[in-house]
Amino acid sequence: MQQRSGQQRPDQQRPDQQRPDLQRLEQPPAPRGARVSRRGLIGGGAAAAGLAGAFVAGHASAQSPSGTSAGTSSYAFRGAHQAGIVTPAQDRLHFAAFDVTTGSRAQLVALLRAWTDAAERMTRGLPAGGGAVEGAPDLPPDDTGEAIGLPASGLTITFGFGPGLFRDAHGRDRFGIADRRPAALAQLPHFPGDVLDEARSYGDLCVQACADDPQVAVHAIRNLARIGFGTVAVRWSQLGFGRTSTTSTSQSTPRNLFGFKDGTHNVKAEQASAVDEHVWVAAGDDPAAEWLAGGSYLVARRFDMAIEVWDRQTLGDQEDSIGRTKGTGAPLSGGGEFTRPDFTMAGSHGPVIPEDAHVSVVHPDHNGGARMLRRGYNFVDGTDALGGLNAGLFFLAYVRDPRTQFIPIQAKMAKADALMEYLQVTGSALFAVPPGAGAGEHVGQALFT
Amino acid sequence: MQQRSGQQRPDQQRPDQQRPDLQRLEQPPAPRGARVSRRGLIGGGAAAAGLAGAFVAGHASAQSPSGTSAGTSSYAFRGAHQAGIVTPAQDRLHFAAFDVTTGSRAQLVALLRAWTDAAERMTRGLPAGGGAVEGAPDLPPDDTGEAIGLPASGLTITFGFGPGLFRDAHGRDRFGIADRRPAALAQLPHFPGDVLDEARSYGDLCVQACADDPQVAVHAIRNLARIGFGTVAVRWSQLGFGRTSTTSTSQSTPRNLFGFKDGTHNVKAEQASAVDEHVWVAAGDDPAAEWLAGGSYLVARRFDMAIEVWDRQTLGDQEDSIGRTKGTGAPLSGGGEFTRPDFTMAGSHGPVIPEDAHVSVVHPDHNGGARMLRRGYNFVDGTDALGGLNAGLFFLAYVRDPRTQFIPIQAKMAKADALMEYLQVTGSALFAVPPGAGAGEHVGQALFT
Repeated sequence: MQQRSGQQRPDQQRPDQQRPDLQRLEQPPAPRGARVSRRGLIGGGAAAAGLAGAFVAGHASAQSPSGTSAGTSSYAFRGAHQAGIVTPAQDRLHFAAFDVTTGSRAQLVALLRAWTDAAERMTRGLPAGGGAVEGAPDLPPDDTGEAIGLPASGLTITFGFGPGLFRDAHGRDRFGIADRRPAALAQLPHFPGDVLDEARSYGDLCVQACADDPQVAVHAIRNLARIGFGTVAVRWSQLGFGRTSTTSTSQSTPRNLFGFKDGTHNVKAEQASAVDEHVWVAAGDDPAAEWLAGGSYLVARRFDMAIEVWDRQTLGDQEDSIGRTKGTGAPLSGGGEFTRPDFTMAGSHGPVIPEDAHVSVVHPDHNGGARMLRRGYNFVDGTDALGGLNAGLFFLAYVRDPRTQFIPIQAKMAKADALMEYLQVTGSALFAVPPGAGAGEHVGQALFT
Repeated sequence: MQQRSGQQRPDQQRPDQQRPDLQRLEQPPAPRGARVSRRGLIGGGAAAAGLAGAFVAGHASAQSPSGTSAGTSSYAFRGAHQAGIVTPAQDRLHFAAFDVTTGSRAQLVALLRAWTDAAERMTRGLPAGGGAVEGAPDLPPDDTGEAIGLPASGLTITFGFGPGLFRDAHGRDRFGIADRRPAALAQLPHFPGDVLDEARSYGDLCVQACADDPQVAVHAIRNLARIGFGTVAVRWSQLGFGRTSTTSTSQSTPRNLFGFKDGTHNVKAEQASAVDEHVWVAAGDDPAAEWLAGGSYLVARRFDMAIEVWDRQTLGDQEDSIGRTKGTGAPLSGGGEFTRPDFTMAGSHGPVIPEDAHVSVVHPDHNGGARMLRRGYNFVDGTDALGGLNAGLFFLAYVRDPRTQFIPIQAKMAKADALMEYLQVTGSALFAVPPGAGAGEHVGQALFT
């Protein structure tokens, strides 16, 4: 980690700022209007007070970066696995998918290194940049500033690679990695109920930023997009405001916008053997893609909910569609939230839990034991043209192999699940999520070496 | 307040559920599939356990409504003024504007009563409905459920009336209140830089829901929209994730998406004389609209920011556009955040604070002493077609008279403010915000009596 320094001059840029594409961001426009001697101090720090013009003396020490000692509210960026997967799910999300606009492998690798540096800094509650801007009012700031003064807020930043990184829409192997494409990394098939919007689907790269403060998550995506200007372009992005799953046994089960508890039987971080079995790609899983060992696959699906239609259904119909009670989340066969559903219990006109109830359709017992680590979020994106809430569930799930753990279940759900009456899938993407970056490495380094 | 009761039968509905329009929501669709005897318990409670079918016994007491004793995190709905104006600004917003679709004054008044009841309940952390649904699986729930288990979260719900309520686009006085229209309540004039989207502008009614948890704010708007089905339709809605102003001296100044502190010199709740002078409409202000005394006017403007362009400006240019430093928010003339700007201080090529700096253009000293109580929020609504963040500032300001406190300042800003280079106004609306509802009253009652 480079320490910020008020004395660093513009010509002492970090190597990644000298790459042609990234450098475009750093070109100083002509100064506008009256300029006086003044030191911009982004994020505060100790070095600048002595450099500042006399009339701004005193402002330098008023702000110091917070969150670097935030304890449980910050997570290490580096490790065997990327953070943001089994990390206890934070409450807020900003997710972005990018298209790579360069054809240069070197530029792509340089971007991954710059992103790794910035992500490590931001997850520590530091500004995205190393501080070269201090004392340099004629350069754009290397942090956009809206998170100054906010703590790390449990920020995690998780990167993924889409199929297009390995072979683009024209079949080109732009970066010389086509032969290392994981066999499971292909566009998802079309499912009944899919009405995909291209502008909400696919992407060569993805970044999942989760935090306890949405301003911190937004700040992370924005700065990564800024750093990537000229190398990548945002294809789509999605904010989520309420998580719909628990990834730790320490968390209580949240509710989705159907008003029901969601994620009761999610794979939990504490269940190490379940995580190993269902989430992490193991060495030997895919001989062509050993670089992915310790990683995972991320399925992202935007489920638009017919909120107003749902809200007019009777409580009984809602509960039949889910297979659980709305109040406590207990299976309709009785007990409490965590009681095992009894799919054989008979009611007056059939099973108490209808066969087309969501909980029955997707239950591991009915899907060869397949489970996922779900990490989705509720979203409301304002109002649609008819005045309905543009709202739903941004489904995120990490799996060891989407071919067995997601595709068959989604296909079955699309055909047989009573909930699908109230759902449309408008966005869809699949990414391979590399393992965590070790010391000195950039994310995904094993793919490029 | 009606207590929830597990024994209330569907035919014992509250009076407001018997109004023709609202009743449409309550019509039970035909039961679907297998139904068994089961008591839906939304929000938990004590009464249902004994009524529940044996196989679900045990789930009833697992959930109890939270937040009713949440102390500082709940605000009284009733009072001389509506909550959500001088209330310390919460961090999250869902704002909705509605068109009234009925021509019936009685239905409009009944809606305001139903909204008042539901708002009072929700701000206490209770479900929106009185609980008639308990024991009634064949009715739609009278609360949508996604906030069950969440505390009141400081929720405030603030209602306003648009010009169209008094006279619609065809000049009709639908509700017999045209002669009581406040003189200041007219559509805002067109300003340079306005590129208004009709689908993000105007509205007969508005509801501002602010809370510390976005799921609680969304829940409030959704349930009010649900209750209003058939009487009103959502025209537009906007989520905000980070406040941009302080309304209490107890709050630190947040940052907007330009990365700068915003709202430093906002009118604060603790400044009683400033609030009386600048925020509340006084008796005698408008003889035709005495019903508005104790209320205010709400200006809502959606400022789209050219984020990617802004991020490429030098720090110096950014600070010149604002007139403050990015780090501490001190005026460019020196001192700390709360130091008074010195607009006369000379720099090398003109004033240190440029004349077109935002802080100079909008400063009360340059606007006849006019001030506002700002209560805006940052927003990011995903990505636009070019891959830029669809982001900006959802400006909300409460003023005693928009003709003197907003329109001249906005006109000047649109012409002369350096910031406008990075801003487009895509949504705009003005509302008269009635005073608070007293005991037994509905919001806006004085307008209809």
